Amino acid sequence: MATIVFYKMAHTTTRQSLVAHLKRVAGLRQTRSPFSSSRCPSVTPLPGAGLRFLSHGTAGRPAAGRTGRGALALCGAAAVTVAAAVAGFLANASHFQRAEMATRVSPAAAEEKEEDGDILERCRGFMSPPVTDISVLQGRKEEMRTRMEMLIMETQADFCRALQEVDGGVFKVDRWERKEGGGGISCVMQDGKVFEKAGVNVSVVFGNLTEEAARQMRSRGKVLKGKDGKLPFCAMGVSSVIHPKNPHIPTVHFNYRYFEIEEEDGTKQWWFGGGTDLTPIYVNKEDAFHFHNTLKEACDKHHSQYYPDFKKWCDRYFYIRHRGETRGIGGIFFDDLDTPSQEAAFQFVRSCARTVVPCYLPIVYKHLNDSFTDEEKDWQQVRRGRYVEFNLVYDRGVKFGLATPGSRIESILMSLPLTARWEYMHEPAKGTLEAEMLEVLQNPKEWV
Amino acid sequence: MATIVFYKMAHTTTRQSLVAHLKRVAGLRQTRSPFSSSRCPSVTPLPGAGLRFLSHGTAGRPAAGRTGRGALALCGAAAVTVAAAVAGFLANASHFQRAEMATRVSPAAAEEKEEDGDILERCRGFMSPPVTDISVLQGRKEEMRTRMEMLIMETQADFCRALQEVDGGVFKVDRWERKEGGGGISCVMQDGKVFEKAGVNVSVVFGNLTEEAARQMRSRGKVLKGKDGKLPFCAMGVSSVIHPKNPHIPTVHFNYRYFEIEEEDGTKQWWFGGGTDLTPIYVNKEDAFHFHNTLKEACDKHHSQYYPDFKKWCDRYFYIRHRGETRGIGGIFFDDLDTPSQEAAFQFVRSCARTVVPCYLPIVYKHLNDSFTDEEKDWQQVRRGRYVEFNLVYDRGVKFGLATPGSRIESILMSLPLTARWEYMHEPAKGTLEAEMLEVLQNPKEWV
Repeated sequence: MATIVFYKMAHTTTRQSLVAHLKRVAGLRQTRSPFSSSRCPSVTPLPGAGLRFLSHGTAGRPAAGRTGRGALALCGAAAVTVAAAVAGFLANASHFQRAEMATRVSPAAAEEKEEDGDILERCRGFMSPPVTDISVLQGRKEEMRTRMEMLIMETQADFCRALQEVDGGVFKVDRWERKEGGGGISCVMQDGKVFEKAGVNVSVVFGNLTEEAARQMRSRGKVLKGKDGKLPFCAMGVSSVIHPKNPHIPTVHFNYRYFEIEEEDGTKQWWFGGGTDLTPIYVNKEDAFHFHNTLKEACDKHHSQYYPDFKKWCDRYFYIRHRGETRGIGGIFFDDLDTPSQEAAFQFVRSCARTVVPCYLPIVYKHLNDSFTDEEKDWQQVRRGRYVEFNLVYDRGVKFGLATPGSRIESILMSLPLTARWEYMHEPAKGTLEAEMLEVLQNPKEWV
Repeated sequence: MATIVFYKMAHTTTRQSLVAHLKRVAGLRQTRSPFSSSRCPSVTPLPGAGLRFLSHGTAGRPAAGRTGRGALALCGAAAVTVAAAVAGFLANASHFQRAEMATRVSPAAAEEKEEDGDILERCRGFMSPPVTDISVLQGRKEEMRTRMEMLIMETQADFCRALQEVDGGVFKVDRWERKEGGGGISCVMQDGKVFEKAGVNVSVVFGNLTEEAARQMRSRGKVLKGKDGKLPFCAMGVSSVIHPKNPHIPTVHFNYRYFEIEEEDGTKQWWFGGGTDLTPIYVNKEDAFHFHNTLKEACDKHHSQYYPDFKKWCDRYFYIRHRGETRGIGGIFFDDLDTPSQEAAFQFVRSCARTVVPCYLPIVYKHLNDSFTDEEKDWQQVRRGRYVEFNLVYDRGVKFGLATPGSRIESILMSLPLTARWEYMHEPAKGTLEAEMLEVLQNPKEWV
């Protein structure tokens, strides 16, 4: 069923209609935010796989001043989404293989060009103005906190656009401020055509931490010495949870974050954390391979141990202890990353952030029109219940957020599904697809 | 609408049909459990309020050997439910006033007679054989742990029968054992006609505690001295959460528990805890008054400060801090009660346990046939989400259970609703009934 739909897309999607489509997506954005732009990425036919598109939204971004080209340069995620679908089916190959090809070519180019664009120009593609004043960002363009804020804003925009395109719905964008310093941008789409609830949140907060709080924030528990017991800090990140309606489309979660703490003597401690993980309702080995392999390829470019180590960490972290099962089939998870250098760690995190769309969107498109039964929907709702259990009982971010006065609760709890279900003594019968899923959750697998 | 239905019940419910009805209820029970009995309480017409029934299942229980009368003595809760409905409407008065009358007369008699019945005879009315062997209970009939186990088993049976009668469904009864000592009986009815999910759980556990665990169990944190650091303990309780389908019927929760810990020198520390609280979806002042007033009357018989103190404690305990709202409209909550004497404390707890049916069932009957809109159902689902948040994030019992290896997770989490909903930024419009409910939850009221 998915194949038929994709073929239709492939055959009706010419370069002209795609550009029109992307403009329409951009147009939608314009009505939503006074800050939005109608600019879209350049769409270039590449040889060998039918149509090809520069991916990730950052690829093909104009150098400062090249506004003529820039006029089509800021909706990259929408392009990569369509690219994944089109490239996969035009060439009579697995759309995953093709999607990989499409995304394997472009990130390399994208990464080199990442910081070419003028700050103001790049900000035009965001879902909202960044948390930090653009003039401040321009004044400290080379600093890591600027580069990271730009990355998380771009990740939010790319992912939101890709989701809007497949859903047809529009994200509600909320800017919020934190009294103690900083704020965030929450994008939520609820009860859409494809997505039950989709949340993509950026936050950039700063202020002073007590030594005890600083120690808790850092998972290795390193002792940090503050001036009069206070440590200036800055924390920022992008996080997202997407719950689709169709039980054959998995839930995805990702989070990429950066911390800076200044010690008494002026030295800065910094580290990155993050991860992307998938929560399917039914086992689909092809999806699992695609998801993990896309992450592995992103990791392998930086260190051969990253994928195996961070895959294990992910299985350990997303474990619902009282159920004896993982939340989903994992992905990668890491924290406290401050090696081998700040630049190298940032480049790794950037690679991870840029795999979000190619990890997930091909799976969404593949199952977009899968039919499902009431029983399959019920099983999805039971799994959603377990998702809620993990998030409220174990997730460190949620626990920290709920316990912190002044937190924006709606942004923290936007990760909860729209609907969930708890059936007493729910036990899938042996030999069912539900039992197969449970078996995988009880015994994490190697997918690649 | 509720009134019409009750009138119908009142006019068709003669003594004969009630007896037939109660027998039918008893018959249902018999098919369910090899342990069940077809015995039902004596039904006696009393002057002044049409038909009257001895309430609570324990009233009218025969002394040992009086099996002739005992043949009808073990389905008391079914009787009190019908009594509340019938007494209320026959006499053309508020059914709450009449329900109170019915329950005000009988507990006094019941309390005096509580321990008249033979242990074996009384056990026949339970949902399952008690956790402790009947021969063991018979051998230490006068001890508090026996009296409390009998009380919690009776409370479970009375409440389950009352709910089965109104719903027409049947509880699934699971007995479970705890490897380290003791076990429990979980009764769950799911997706019934009236109740979305109804759980009534008894547990009786014993073994050895570390000094640290013993200290944590006791909320006042008294230091307890064990032999070689170990303290023999016994903990038992009945707890229940009922989630109805109709948003005009509130959710109810209660829990009554007893602890014993033996110190190095052989002295026993003991205490009681418990409470009953209501979580309506919409404010109904008459329901709130009935619920709180029934609790207040039960409390006032024992100490004039119990209701005001335990009402406040309840509002404090069932507080969802990150939302700035209580879970519901409260009731009573207390812990660590070991005054003025063990006998007096037990009698208070017994009074509380016996108010569960008269607190709740008249409210269920009143709203049984209330119509509701999709919007009202949605609001119920949002409130259910908050219920889940409280239970997973704050409830001490749930947290303790989830963190304790070997806990029976399904019994701990049976308190979660069958379905729940999380809408991003859900804010009821000003002036709506939903906003009125929220206002009450944000500013707990005095209802009596």
